[in-house]
Amino acid sequence: MPDERKKRSLEIADDGVEAVRPLPPLAQSFPSSEKVAVGELGVPFRRIDLSNDDPAITVYDTSGPQDIDPREGLPKLRQPWIDARADQFTGNHSQMHWARRGIITPEMRFVAIREQVEPEFVRDEVAAGRAIIPANIKHPELEPMIIGRNFLVKINANIGNSAVSSSIEEEVEKLQWATRWGADTVMDLSTGSDIHQTREWVLRNSPVPIGTVPIYQALEKVKGKVEDLSIEVFMETLREQAEQGVDYFTIHAGVLLRYVPLTAKRVTGIVSRGGSIMAKWCLAHHKENFLYTHFEQICELMKEYDVAFSLGDGLRPGSIADANDEAQFGELRTLGELTKIAWKHDIQVMIEGPGHVPMHKIKENMDEQLRLCHEAPFYTLGPLTTDIAPGYDHITSGIGAAMIGQLGCAMLCYVTPKEHLGLPNRDDVKTGVITYKIAAHAADLAKGHPGAQARDDALSKARFEFRWHDQFNLSLDPETARLFHDETLPAEPAKTAHFCSMCGPHFCSMKLTQDLRDMSEEAAEGLRQKAEEFRAQGGELYVDPDAAE
Amino acid sequence: MPDERKKRSLEIADDGVEAVRPLPPLAQSFPSSEKVAVGELGVPFRRIDLSNDDPAITVYDTSGPQDIDPREGLPKLRQPWIDARADQFTGNHSQMHWARRGIITPEMRFVAIREQVEPEFVRDEVAAGRAIIPANIKHPELEPMIIGRNFLVKINANIGNSAVSSSIEEEVEKLQWATRWGADTVMDLSTGSDIHQTREWVLRNSPVPIGTVPIYQALEKVKGKVEDLSIEVFMETLREQAEQGVDYFTIHAGVLLRYVPLTAKRVTGIVSRGGSIMAKWCLAHHKENFLYTHFEQICELMKEYDVAFSLGDGLRPGSIADANDEAQFGELRTLGELTKIAWKHDIQVMIEGPGHVPMHKIKENMDEQLRLCHEAPFYTLGPLTTDIAPGYDHITSGIGAAMIGQLGCAMLCYVTPKEHLGLPNRDDVKTGVITYKIAAHAADLAKGHPGAQARDDALSKARFEFRWHDQFNLSLDPETARLFHDETLPAEPAKTAHFCSMCGPHFCSMKLTQDLRDMSEEAAEGLRQKAEEFRAQGGELYVDPDAAE
Repeated sequence: MPDERKKRSLEIADDGVEAVRPLPPLAQSFPSSEKVAVGELGVPFRRIDLSNDDPAITVYDTSGPQDIDPREGLPKLRQPWIDARADQFTGNHSQMHWARRGIITPEMRFVAIREQVEPEFVRDEVAAGRAIIPANIKHPELEPMIIGRNFLVKINANIGNSAVSSSIEEEVEKLQWATRWGADTVMDLSTGSDIHQTREWVLRNSPVPIGTVPIYQALEKVKGKVEDLSIEVFMETLREQAEQGVDYFTIHAGVLLRYVPLTAKRVTGIVSRGGSIMAKWCLAHHKENFLYTHFEQICELMKEYDVAFSLGDGLRPGSIADANDEAQFGELRTLGELTKIAWKHDIQVMIEGPGHVPMHKIKENMDEQLRLCHEAPFYTLGPLTTDIAPGYDHITSGIGAAMIGQLGCAMLCYVTPKEHLGLPNRDDVKTGVITYKIAAHAADLAKGHPGAQARDDALSKARFEFRWHDQFNLSLDPETARLFHDETLPAEPAKTAHFCSMCGPHFCSMKLTQDLRDMSEEAAEGLRQKAEEFRAQGGELYVDPDAAE
Repeated sequence: MPDERKKRSLEIADDGVEAVRPLPPLAQSFPSSEKVAVGELGVPFRRIDLSNDDPAITVYDTSGPQDIDPREGLPKLRQPWIDARADQFTGNHSQMHWARRGIITPEMRFVAIREQVEPEFVRDEVAAGRAIIPANIKHPELEPMIIGRNFLVKINANIGNSAVSSSIEEEVEKLQWATRWGADTVMDLSTGSDIHQTREWVLRNSPVPIGTVPIYQALEKVKGKVEDLSIEVFMETLREQAEQGVDYFTIHAGVLLRYVPLTAKRVTGIVSRGGSIMAKWCLAHHKENFLYTHFEQICELMKEYDVAFSLGDGLRPGSIADANDEAQFGELRTLGELTKIAWKHDIQVMIEGPGHVPMHKIKENMDEQLRLCHEAPFYTLGPLTTDIAPGYDHITSGIGAAMIGQLGCAMLCYVTPKEHLGLPNRDDVKTGVITYKIAAHAADLAKGHPGAQARDDALSKARFEFRWHDQFNLSLDPETARLFHDETLPAEPAKTAHFCSMCGPHFCSMKLTQDLRDMSEEAAEGLRQKAEEFRAQGGELYVDPDAAE
């Protein structure tokens, strides 16, 4: 990025920065929590301290360094690692490149500590293409993370202005807000006029990988005329964005000319922006998609920076009616072909997936993706399991996201309550992220991920012991939990009371159970004997009411 | 109910009724909709009229008669049907009783029209115990509905005051609000002092079956002293509630003495209120649960009124850690025994289920319930798929509810955002109901229920054609959908614009797809030829970038 241009972008943003409603401090969002940096690499976690001498719970943390002036940007954690590899540079910077040569990079060691696995395992999964560490060498602010089905399920949050709404400052704020609540990666989907500047601000302030859909900016460069798109303007855009530090590119190289007619009879045609742009280009020129025909040229550029592919599903279904059709699976086969080509270049690849899919068709998506795309990580949008609830599509899609996560999907792209209706504001971003943290965590539990249940158990124990503050603090959203509690029983003593507003003191099952437990050991022993006698007397059988009591 | 007592309850409520914030009119919640009554039985549906000459969509409707003075109560639709059967009365009024004798009751015909199946099928499912029509003969205001896995998945909403909060008027308002948004049954879980009066008001104003947990009121009668509970006070309570018209009773007859010690090592012990009451009674007396030992006596009463059993899962898990344990499945086996006894009396039965269950343990619950309980309908609370999100447990449980619904669960008990934290207010009730309508509908789609997809398809078509009003009106919550849209693009012309705030005019995939479709037939034909040529030339293979263009 030319210095002049950068300066201007910061100036523009400077003018507006005072108008931004400041985010609440981290300690307000997460009381009794402390960010900790583990090991010489400083791998971030958040420790939640508990009362009652219960051991603290340490959780995965994506919030990044705090209280940094956004005009300065985050510290460049990775710069020494990248510099140290520079003399070994052979035209390829990708983590897959090093992994396949048996080398464990600092990024892999960082990820291993974060995921609590061995670094060799991280290296082997990356080498096999089953996992990716999106980490552009021009994004040194990044805290590395990994996306693959043998690791914790990840979530992505989309931000981005459009011609209609939003500003640069709002986008940076959304980034910080999304990562605070747990977004593992963020996609900047801006299509407005300040697209370059927005991205610069976002990248310099992002501790998580940033993804983009470069065709959007390419289209801006040709003034919105789809027919004028070309591989030249696209490559220029890729270079510009790779130089800025974008960590993964969504590229719709699987939208082939012959698939386009397959969408003609659909209820909702093509709903991917990138997909519809490429389809229109193909038809306008009666030529094959230039992203497909020039795929190796694209690979050559991406490996210089270690930008990962997120192969776009331009023909994903936009409604229940269109799920799992020929257009969708045709494209998926092509994405599998392209995966092999990218891997030939040691470029990391993940595959994007739907969309709108009823529950009984979700498994086929996951199975086909693994089979056709050679186990490259799957990255799905939801899927939404019904079309009838606009305003609640974080929920319609959270259901599908949890299910496909359990089946092996590596990353879940969030959906906010505003999906299909408008642009998400700060509250919507939070709701979307929390919903998807729920889906991802439910999937981790269902996959039996080691250690995943510790937080559930600690929270449930706190709940059972009426340690209200601990229950709040262990939750995904302590502020909301506390607020909801206080709506019915606001006083501080209520937070140590051995009952709550739901049942009142006489009907509290937890209190009753604790009464049971408080019975003496003697009584318990008597009970056991009694139960045994009962069993010996044939307690399995129904006792006639007239015979008993 | 003595007239004097009834009068007093209405007087008490009269004093407060003016203070109730009125519900918005139905037409405000559902614009372009009209309630319709089908056939001589007047089976209710709601017709959603569309623009563009698209055919209207007719949906299942639980909202009941509107604009009725709550002090008068709803019209007594079923009274003539009940009266007509009176001369055939042989001590048993249950729908199962008639069904097993080959008789199709008006309730069955009503349900058949509602579900759009044959009345013979309804009768046969009820006779087999695979479905129930909860319909107390003392609840003539009821619009009959059916719960069974071969019908639409149903949802229940809980209302009820406690010693700490809420009033009678609020409970009636919550009932009307819950049924407006789609609650198929409502449980009144009140434990306060006005428990009888609250229930009277609720029943006289309820078009849906009302369920209760009679042990709560029995406990009030013995002044909260669990040890003083007895079969006598319980039977008196059952009679009182059956006379009022309660349609199903949750009875925790499966909490056996020998199961109680199995809960001692649990993270969250016993979390069912009824379950913990019975467990404490068992231990206090060192005797078997009197609901179990007097089960046939209970049956004798219930068949007089056709009150259905909802056999309570008093030992359901209250945390992920406790899911699918010995206590839970032991109780389930006992519920299976009791089902057979109830069926001997021709009493309708459903079985309550968990609770907190991680996704990979959900299927075992459904499979075991069907096996152990002889295919009696399953009625689950969620299940919640993680414990870490208090404030969002409508979502943690909505995921589990959709999954277990797909697997065959017949009714899903809603969970509101306030679960574990406080009592739900009006907004929470709505959020809980809508979330569970999503789960139930997603399950109907996944089960391939005939006709279920029509609304999804109509909404998606409206979305694709930029018919914003139709999209809103077809949704589960039109007001919220419209509100969210208007936050970004408030003006009326935006609702006919061929793009929206998400992407703006240049990046609208739907607009681009429509551009594609607008290409002439000639062009489309050319495209098809082109695509065929391409395929003939080996289009399956990757085209080297240097060779193309």
